[in-house]
Amino acid sequence: MNYLIVAKVLGNLLIFKSAALVLPLLVSILYREGDYFPFLVTILFTLILGFFLSSIKVNGRIRIRESLLIVVFGWLLVSFFGSLPFVMSGYFTPVDAFFETVSGLTTTGATILDDIKILPKGILFWRSFTHWLGGMGILVLTLAILPALGVGGFQIFKAESPGPISNKLVPKMKDTAKILYTAYLGITILQVVLLYLGRMSFYESLLHTFGTMGTGGFSTRNSSIGAFNHNSYLVFVITIFMVAAGVNFFLYYDLYKGRWRSVIKNSELRWYLSIIIVASLMITINTRLTVYDSLFEAFKHSTFQVSSFITTTGYTTTDYEQWSSFSKGILFLLMFIGGSAGSTAGSVKVIRIMILWKLVKREIAKILHRKAIIPIKINNQNISLEVVTSITGFVFLYTLLLSIGILVVSLEGHSLASAASTAAATLGNIGPGFEVIGPTRTYSDFSSFTKIFLSILMLLGRLELFTLFALLMPEFWKGS
Amino acid sequence: MNYLIVAKVLGNLLIFKSAALVLPLLVSILYREGDYFPFLVTILFTLILGFFLSSIKVNGRIRIRESLLIVVFGWLLVSFFGSLPFVMSGYFTPVDAFFETVSGLTTTGATILDDIKILPKGILFWRSFTHWLGGMGILVLTLAILPALGVGGFQIFKAESPGPISNKLVPKMKDTAKILYTAYLGITILQVVLLYLGRMSFYESLLHTFGTMGTGGFSTRNSSIGAFNHNSYLVFVITIFMVAAGVNFFLYYDLYKGRWRSVIKNSELRWYLSIIIVASLMITINTRLTVYDSLFEAFKHSTFQVSSFITTTGYTTTDYEQWSSFSKGILFLLMFIGGSAGSTAGSVKVIRIMILWKLVKREIAKILHRKAIIPIKINNQNISLEVVTSITGFVFLYTLLLSIGILVVSLEGHSLASAASTAAATLGNIGPGFEVIGPTRTYSDFSSFTKIFLSILMLLGRLELFTLFALLMPEFWKGS
Repeated sequence: MNYLIVAKVLGNLLIFKSAALVLPLLVSILYREGDYFPFLVTILFTLILGFFLSSIKVNGRIRIRESLLIVVFGWLLVSFFGSLPFVMSGYFTPVDAFFETVSGLTTTGATILDDIKILPKGILFWRSFTHWLGGMGILVLTLAILPALGVGGFQIFKAESPGPISNKLVPKMKDTAKILYTAYLGITILQVVLLYLGRMSFYESLLHTFGTMGTGGFSTRNSSIGAFNHNSYLVFVITIFMVAAGVNFFLYYDLYKGRWRSVIKNSELRWYLSIIIVASLMITINTRLTVYDSLFEAFKHSTFQVSSFITTTGYTTTDYEQWSSFSKGILFLLMFIGGSAGSTAGSVKVIRIMILWKLVKREIAKILHRKAIIPIKINNQNISLEVVTSITGFVFLYTLLLSIGILVVSLEGHSLASAASTAAATLGNIGPGFEVIGPTRTYSDFSSFTKIFLSILMLLGRLELFTLFALLMPEFWKGS
Repeated sequence: MNYLIVAKVLGNLLIFKSAALVLPLLVSILYREGDYFPFLVTILFTLILGFFLSSIKVNGRIRIRESLLIVVFGWLLVSFFGSLPFVMSGYFTPVDAFFETVSGLTTTGATILDDIKILPKGILFWRSFTHWLGGMGILVLTLAILPALGVGGFQIFKAESPGPISNKLVPKMKDTAKILYTAYLGITILQVVLLYLGRMSFYESLLHTFGTMGTGGFSTRNSSIGAFNHNSYLVFVITIFMVAAGVNFFLYYDLYKGRWRSVIKNSELRWYLSIIIVASLMITINTRLTVYDSLFEAFKHSTFQVSSFITTTGYTTTDYEQWSSFSKGILFLLMFIGGSAGSTAGSVKVIRIMILWKLVKREIAKILHRKAIIPIKINNQNISLEVVTSITGFVFLYTLLLSIGILVVSLEGHSLASAASTAAATLGNIGPGFEVIGPTRTYSDFSSFTKIFLSILMLLGRLELFTLFALLMPEFWKGS
């Protein structure tokens, strides 16, 4: 293991992170609510450590081991240093600050804040900005900005990027990262403008866009997007951009390059949109019959909550706990689907569900044609059995962690349904869920032990499990 | 499709089934509670139809298609004719009778009876006897008794026998079936004797043994085995025999042949017993701290409920809904494990969980050794990727059906947790579960639509899904 090179890259990451803190610092200075000091201290501290580490002279290159260590420790370091402003602001205990930062960076959006309004604007800005930073990956951003990292660059990208199949797009990793962030930034600006045109304040437009594009879900209001229900335009804009954030960002590059055909024919996109349409229709009809007086209201809240759940954003416009079990059941199932690979969304991802479904069809066909070799195809490309088994391993590990999560949370003494909802909402990076973490509740009442445990679940979900587990193998630490 | 040969085999099945009805007829005559007439009519009706079908002159042989059709229609026919005595007894509506029969044959043990005591002894005997018949497979029994069916015999056995890997043991299918039923019968007699020695009446010893050995769970008492709590000996005997019924029956043949070593080293058996021990210990400690005053009571109820849930029997000794969420969470997770392959237990089966776990370990190792070919081994035998993907397909289809089940049951208007529990308890052939189908509740309040739907879920669970789905493929019906 080449620890020096790991330290150097982490140093670069810290320098970049301290630069990111300049934005909330400026906001706090602008609004003069006395919260600039925590940012100043954190920036200085992070910068000094960053420069120290990045000045290390190194030999060799980044291999798989080093890149895995960089990803895991990078996320832990940024979570730790990112929580310092929260702690110093006096509004958070250290555990709460860590939980909130991990929740932000992993784009979960689970909050321990019972009253958001009382916090200064700089702190709230940083809180939402973590969503935007974490959405596309904190290391991908580092890759885009910092000097080339050698072959390890692709490994880091692979470990941090959601979904089972990562393509490079262009030969240089650095260019791929730049393309991704350009698309991300472009759509972000578009959403801010559209929200601002709908008469949301610029500050709130910005923060809600961070929460949308990162599929995070932190809001500036205690009632989340429900505070803007009188302005349906804003609700629909956020709905559309949540859906957009759950699309594979490589497809935006294809669009930009004029490759319409490959976008329209992309089967993951088709599945993703079909699931949203079918789920929205079912809930619209069901809630129109049981809760809402107008079809418009039913449609507005249904499409919003469906988009929020499948993209694992976690914004809410209504207390969906009042919906029927059928509608809640659909939302609950969406928690286990998630957005597309290569998007900012969490959970299992549509492409894995697709491949497993094709596997089921193949197995049924194999009963009749025992000896036949039936390939599994996605976008007309054969998927090898190795890829299929890797997806299977992921989904099973996801289920195992969910089970352990349910048992650990159940020790808090809430109902079993509460425990299941909490474990699913954190591992899937969703945020709110049902029962004890329903739309009108927060995570504030959990014990410190459970908060730390849930933070780990959020990180496991964001880094798609295997990366963290690889570090637990004795083999990982052996050898050079 | 060779429909004539299908009809002939189904005719043989009906003859055998009418023979099975002679036992409850004798019981009803013995106890003189006026319930002999329904059995007499059903026997005559089934026998006539059976002889008519079995007298068909046929050519050709049983291939895969025919054997699948035989299994699916065989189960539907026996469920239909088996429900006739219930309907004629006047205690059941036709839908309830069908539900109860399917629940019995699939060894689910979900009941619509709110008061069991009022039913005549012959009817209750038949109700419990369906567990014993369905446990090892109604067609396996037919195979053991009737003339050889050609190569199709193995296909039928494979389709009906639980678990992914069916071995033949001995060259002739007929002999394999005989060995299985001999072991089954032997252990059954042993349990009846042990219960009777513990001062349970002979009638109740017999019926509770049927429910135990088939891992069904129908009892003669409204409070299930809880009615015998004063006699801990009986509780422990049933615990041990539930565990025994969840073991692969081929291992009993190995024992009989003196192959101790292969039994002790069998990895599925080790996993199965380890899960039971760990789960029992955790619940014993947890319930001792939260519910029970004595360690003995905590141990007794914990081991009983753990064994009942993992083997999908569904007997209860206590209202475990009063336990903590942690203990209930463990029971809930056990609902998705099930017993061993080749046992009478339902649900996913330990061997599938084992193989998926080995797959997870393999995937984690593959992160470090990207090009390495790492085999998955069970009992020192390599498991091919084809078998692994087939298991994956099964587990994913199971999850899909569970999801559909939750949504359909949620239309009943109960809580989402109730719907989840109901779908899991029927698809996994368990019977009781949590909330609306908790240990003190029954299935009587569901609508007829839901009862039929749940009956289908039970059949899908018992026949391990793929068999029934193969019939839905257009290809299945095409060709000769």
